Amino acid sequence: MAKPNVKEQIVTSSLELLHSKGFNATSVQDITEAAGVPKGSFYNHFASKEALGLEVLQRYVDAVGTLATVLHDAALTPRQRLQQYFDGMIAGNAANDFQHGCLLGNFSTELSNQIPAMRSAMQAAFDGSSAQLTAVIAAGQQDGSIASALPAAELAGFVNDAWQGAVLRAKAEHSRAPLERFVRVVLDRLLT
Amino acid sequence: MAKPNVKEQIVTSSLELLHSKGFNATSVQDITEAAGVPKGSFYNHFASKEALGLEVLQRYVDAVGTLATVLHDAALTPRQRLQQYFDGMIAGNAANDFQHGCLLGNFSTELSNQIPAMRSAMQAAFDGSSAQLTAVIAAGQQDGSIASALPAAELAGFVNDAWQGAVLRAKAEHSRAPLERFVRVVLDRLLT
Repeated sequence: MAKPNVKEQIVTSSLELLHSKGFNATSVQDITEAAGVPKGSFYNHFASKEALGLEVLQRYVDAVGTLATVLHDAALTPRQRLQQYFDGMIAGNAANDFQHGCLLGNFSTELSNQIPAMRSAMQAAFDGSSAQLTAVIAAGQQDGSIASALPAAELAGFVNDAWQGAVLRAKAEHSRAPLERFVRVVLDRLLT
Repeated sequence: MAKPNVKEQIVTSSLELLHSKGFNATSVQDITEAAGVPKGSFYNHFASKEALGLEVLQRYVDAVGTLATVLHDAALTPRQRLQQYFDGMIAGNAANDFQHGCLLGNFSTELSNQIPAMRSAMQAAFDGSSAQLTAVIAAGQQDGSIASALPAAELAGFVNDAWQGAVLRAKAEHSRAPLERFVRVVLDRLLT
């Protein structure tokens, strides 16, 4: 009978590895070594590396989701919610010196064309964050603090994608600058 | 003595493979099989898969660079240049049914943290496209057709990154929609 804590050790260790090295550059042996568990134990818990990748992606999306709770904070204005949300996302990238990028974005470019189940999970994750941004932008359009020239869903989809592009560039530059530029252009210009 | 056409066959075949499958998922054997050349011939032409990757990236950047010539077409207004440039980029993505993404973006997420020489090449490529966009946006700001609320370089850097994000999302969705949304928001709203 597989011990639950072995599975948890594998997921936790591989989240760090897959985020920093990518999916295909990380072997099952890399993962079991990092987790400090026997290589053979991997397949007691996961049918494949793909199955682990899906679980790690969900874990990551859930963690980012906790940052998104500020988007629902009625004590803040819609603009304050957006500012604090992206400040939190920038802090997340700063924690690895802007070197790892977004696991969701990394997997999107590396695996969308390789693993159909991964692509479905990534689409769902993007749809989820777009929907949350749509609600905040719509609230700002209703109270007049965010420009209404384009529909909230259109702006939110664009902003969600543009964030991924800024993170991609930050990873290529190992720099915070693209993320701060994103916030300035989105909040001071696009949504004003 | 290595035959030049073998090298060219390897570069051409691997551009397609590396674009569709990614760097780490493509082996030297995959490349030599696709090129129809003996596996041993690879190392007559390239010191490593990384060295080939750098050459393929440069080939790709040069090809995209030909699309960017429209950005310098003085017969068009700055807005027309931007529209035609991004129309051309969308057509490039349509050629593989929005499944491959941008090789530069793919390598940025997959390899920025793995291969320092690749990261330098990617930074140079991003700086090059940002500079070209800066010049067009500055021209539009001078003739009054593009909003001047933010500096041209700030807008251009943001737009360049946002394009990468839109391509990333298009790859995750296998869809043209994020790219068309990008053009609408950038041309009809951000730069208006």
